[in-house]
Amino acid sequence: MGQTITEKIFSEHVGREVKAGEIVECELDMIIGNDITTPISIKAFRESGAKKLAKPDNFAIVLDHFIPAKDIASANQAKISREFAYEHNLKHFFDEKDMGIEHALLPEKGLVVPGDVIIGADSHTCTHGALGAFATGMGSTDLAYGMITGKNWFKVPPSIKVVYTGKLDEYVYGKDLILELIRRIGVDGALYKALEFTGDTIENLDMDGRFSLCNMAIEAGAKNGIIAVDEITKAFLADKDLAREPKIHYSDEDAEYEQVIEIDVNSLEPVIAFPHLPSNGRPISEAAKMDLKVDQVFIGSCTNGRLSDIAIAAEILKGRKVARHTRMIVTPATQKILKEAEKQGYIDILIDAGAVVSNPTCGACLGGYMGILADNERCVSTTNRNFIGRMGARTSEIYLANSAVAAASAVAGKIADPREL
Amino acid sequence: MGQTITEKIFSEHVGREVKAGEIVECELDMIIGNDITTPISIKAFRESGAKKLAKPDNFAIVLDHFIPAKDIASANQAKISREFAYEHNLKHFFDEKDMGIEHALLPEKGLVVPGDVIIGADSHTCTHGALGAFATGMGSTDLAYGMITGKNWFKVPPSIKVVYTGKLDEYVYGKDLILELIRRIGVDGALYKALEFTGDTIENLDMDGRFSLCNMAIEAGAKNGIIAVDEITKAFLADKDLAREPKIHYSDEDAEYEQVIEIDVNSLEPVIAFPHLPSNGRPISEAAKMDLKVDQVFIGSCTNGRLSDIAIAAEILKGRKVARHTRMIVTPATQKILKEAEKQGYIDILIDAGAVVSNPTCGACLGGYMGILADNERCVSTTNRNFIGRMGARTSEIYLANSAVAAASAVAGKIADPREL
Repeated sequence: MGQTITEKIFSEHVGREVKAGEIVECELDMIIGNDITTPISIKAFRESGAKKLAKPDNFAIVLDHFIPAKDIASANQAKISREFAYEHNLKHFFDEKDMGIEHALLPEKGLVVPGDVIIGADSHTCTHGALGAFATGMGSTDLAYGMITGKNWFKVPPSIKVVYTGKLDEYVYGKDLILELIRRIGVDGALYKALEFTGDTIENLDMDGRFSLCNMAIEAGAKNGIIAVDEITKAFLADKDLAREPKIHYSDEDAEYEQVIEIDVNSLEPVIAFPHLPSNGRPISEAAKMDLKVDQVFIGSCTNGRLSDIAIAAEILKGRKVARHTRMIVTPATQKILKEAEKQGYIDILIDAGAVVSNPTCGACLGGYMGILADNERCVSTTNRNFIGRMGARTSEIYLANSAVAAASAVAGKIADPREL
Repeated sequence: MGQTITEKIFSEHVGREVKAGEIVECELDMIIGNDITTPISIKAFRESGAKKLAKPDNFAIVLDHFIPAKDIASANQAKISREFAYEHNLKHFFDEKDMGIEHALLPEKGLVVPGDVIIGADSHTCTHGALGAFATGMGSTDLAYGMITGKNWFKVPPSIKVVYTGKLDEYVYGKDLILELIRRIGVDGALYKALEFTGDTIENLDMDGRFSLCNMAIEAGAKNGIIAVDEITKAFLADKDLAREPKIHYSDEDAEYEQVIEIDVNSLEPVIAFPHLPSNGRPISEAAKMDLKVDQVFIGSCTNGRLSDIAIAAEILKGRKVARHTRMIVTPATQKILKEAEKQGYIDILIDAGAVVSNPTCGACLGGYMGILADNERCVSTTNRNFIGRMGARTSEIYLANSAVAAASAVAGKIADPREL
């Protein structure tokens, strides 16, 4: 019996052939903490008596949720990470200096490499699987264990193979692929499984779409999402100074999958997930008929705050205006993305249309800052979670969608189909 | 006996010659509310039984302190203003759509006109005096009275004439003129007085410098700050679609002043106000010797978030880096400023140097969001108030300075003299 990519990554790391279900201890290639979770890891690190990080260059702290500080509490919380980073002379410390959302920033910096085993104290760490790495979210104390030992333990997950076939229509993207999958299998449809994304649709999907897709693997309960390296991956990596030598793995023909899910995307339209679960997806054509007024449109996050998302929004907003009763917030995921969006003229188009463009931050997505919802407000958001109160008031509603649906809804002032604009 | 500009503005408004000390009721040309103060005004407006604004086109609501909302409370607070603006079909309503700090935004939009009487429920409303208008901060219920009646009452303030003479050195700006004045007269040195700024230094001062100067009149306790219209004012107004016909007034030769203060600026160096009062100014050369490490540098606010401030910072940061232990936040005051700064390449220079550039907002200045200070942190800020806890933790320290001092301090990581960089 052959192996899946995920099994191969662990096999390579432990030096013997391992199978799904086995518990392994394994060297970590990258450990990621953010401003919310790292202080707890630092506390556990200190309480252990540890003085030095096992592998300081394989540890990154990214302050991305609440900085520039939104209040005294977040300022003090950030300070804990800052002081630790200075004390340990951390090479990979990102704060106001080179800001970005961790899951967009690390791949950009060459800190995520195919074949890596990565943990992050953030649930959307699974994003990095788009580069053919194993990446998963863990708790802060798990992170501390990694900081102290350079390792952690894993139960090698069994895999679900998702085969997407067909050509994506205009305004249908990676985001729709994952929303459609979660619609089918539910938010617990892949509990502790590896979601391996394959098929000719994926072969033709750009990196931004792949990150978006893998990012929401956790929303189906998956341990990780993963896409095998191909020419598109290699092109993305080509201009980067990679932290390690890539190790490229492919699932064997006879690899064992718990399940194979086939999705024909030829007739897939943009999917919009209604409150209050990412699994409540509906075709946009259906949602657009419901006359659902929108108070806020948010484009950003580790799911859809990349250059292509901003380009899509700018294309739709060019020469148009955000509706009178609607506000639109665009948050580029990194400074590099922001600068490129400026250069391409997207930022000016967005501002001229009536959007506000913020600095890179996780901000609005998690109800942090920079776009929190008031009572009874409705938001179309390119983010990953529409749980009750996720972005603000418990009576607010979040509809998850791609950037085109978000931008079209901003113009219409209600949930709208970009194909009908 | 002749009249001062301030007396002339009131005389013109009430149709007879009035003198300092008189109480007059007077038509208002512009009423300004923001997201903090307007909800209280709206409540009072509604409680009065009023149904319509007396002069809807002379009322502006600018949501600038806490949006995009930093939390549920600010989202709900903003919602009150939004709903009022929609209900009254307000022409001058600014939120995420065309964001800006009220005191930078309104002049940009042609909503402040020479000869105006302006009230705003914000203490820095005095900024607008730079355009030869009478502008002062009032409470929210005073604003409500204006919303209902279109008028308000004033005790015509006596004037203090400040005569600045001489040529400003490099790195000395409008900010230093006002910090030097407050250093001399104290934070109560002009209580309920009009501060009339004159002299050849003012005649050569650009509009950004004039706004900066008038902005801090309140920090000496003044009722208003004012500068007579000249060619520089006219050039600023020339490309604007003005809301009213300008009425230009000049103080008479024999106008009565309570006090005349002469300041020779020829040897004035950049002034930095130490905690915890704007009157604690010291020459930068003295402060720079003290080896005062800086955690945060903030460039922004209605005082110094204008294009020239960003240009000054970019010039200093070009090819340099923000110090390792220091973070730098730049907040352009309006979208127009942000876009122009982009176009000039300043934004890229700032980001490349390690600064973060935010959307326009009052944010950090008032301890709102976007750069709040942690315990025991030290900040060099281009803002207007360094009171205890103003920008965050009560144990933090704020040093007020111009943009050049702020930028130089960011590079040095400690309070620094831009002339020594």
